[in-house]
Amino acid sequence: MVQLDDLDRAILRILKEDARLTISEIAERLNRPESTIHFRIKKLQEKGIIDRYTIVLGKDLQPKALAVVYIQAETPIIEDFLERYILHIMKTLSLLPNVLAVARSGRDGVIALIGEESQEKLNRFVDETIKVLPTLKRVEVLPITDITKGNGIVGFLVDV
Amino acid sequence: MVQLDDLDRAILRILKEDARLTISEIAERLNRPESTIHFRIKKLQEKGIIDRYTIVLGKDLQPKALAVVYIQAETPIIEDFLERYILHIMKTLSLLPNVLAVARSGRDGVIALIGEESQEKLNRFVDETIKVLPTLKRVEVLPITDITKGNGIVGFLVDV
Repeated sequence: MVQLDDLDRAILRILKEDARLTISEIAERLNRPESTIHFRIKKLQEKGIIDRYTIVLGKDLQPKALAVVYIQAETPIIEDFLERYILHIMKTLSLLPNVLAVARSGRDGVIALIGEESQEKLNRFVDETIKVLPTLKRVEVLPITDITKGNGIVGFLVDV
Repeated sequence: MVQLDDLDRAILRILKEDARLTISEIAERLNRPESTIHFRIKKLQEKGIIDRYTIVLGKDLQPKALAVVYIQAETPIIEDFLERYILHIMKTLSLLPNVLAVARSGRDGVIALIGEESQEKLNRFVDETIKVLPTLKRVEVLPITDITKGNGIVGFLVDV
């Protein structure tokens, strides 16, 4: 496990909020010499604590309707088939631009975050693309009405 | 809806991958004058298409065990109570550092993304913090085994 001190954490918190700040702006905020901040950020990057710098896209590019969809496959007699089938579903969903995130859930499940322009389009996508997948045991659609923590998630995930 | 042309989209895609690139590096990649790139990025920021710049934290700071938890409250006779109860659950969860994201799902549901150091800790958190909430109709725990699309989500959400 990595050891981070208070200064490292303070720098990371500042960069999470605004990664465009200059070394000298961060140094001023934390009341430390620029050389210290420069050295710390360099180390945090080298160690992979900072994995990458990115942008969060604004509301205009974000889908208006969101849902978490849980897909559970029917357990077949041949175990190997289940494995290949789950990987196939995950790959198929990953290629779709309106599927913002795809994760595996256990041996027989897939979780996807779906984003569409409207609730109607989202419902249609679930009906016409997900529910038609063969040999599913269960499809659970959990609509997302409002995000109260981790709000930037959609602007982070959305494609352009 | 905003109008973005191919150049805007190309710039956004580059910044999503690496927001630390300089104007001149982006200009070179896209074979356009620096002044054009500078102007476009300025516009994208002003219009809020680029909402903010941030960092994604690396594996070392990310929780090892993840789960999506869906909580559905029992529908009480007094409607106003349900509303206040759901908001209370959302607020309570939002304050916890191991709860990476919290969203409302419809009138009576809450979805949370939980991250813990180990599967045991995650199970204990669900048992001792979530399942003990009064008047729940249903608690569904969907473990996340592997993220195949939107992988940066955890490093984006995690607190330091």
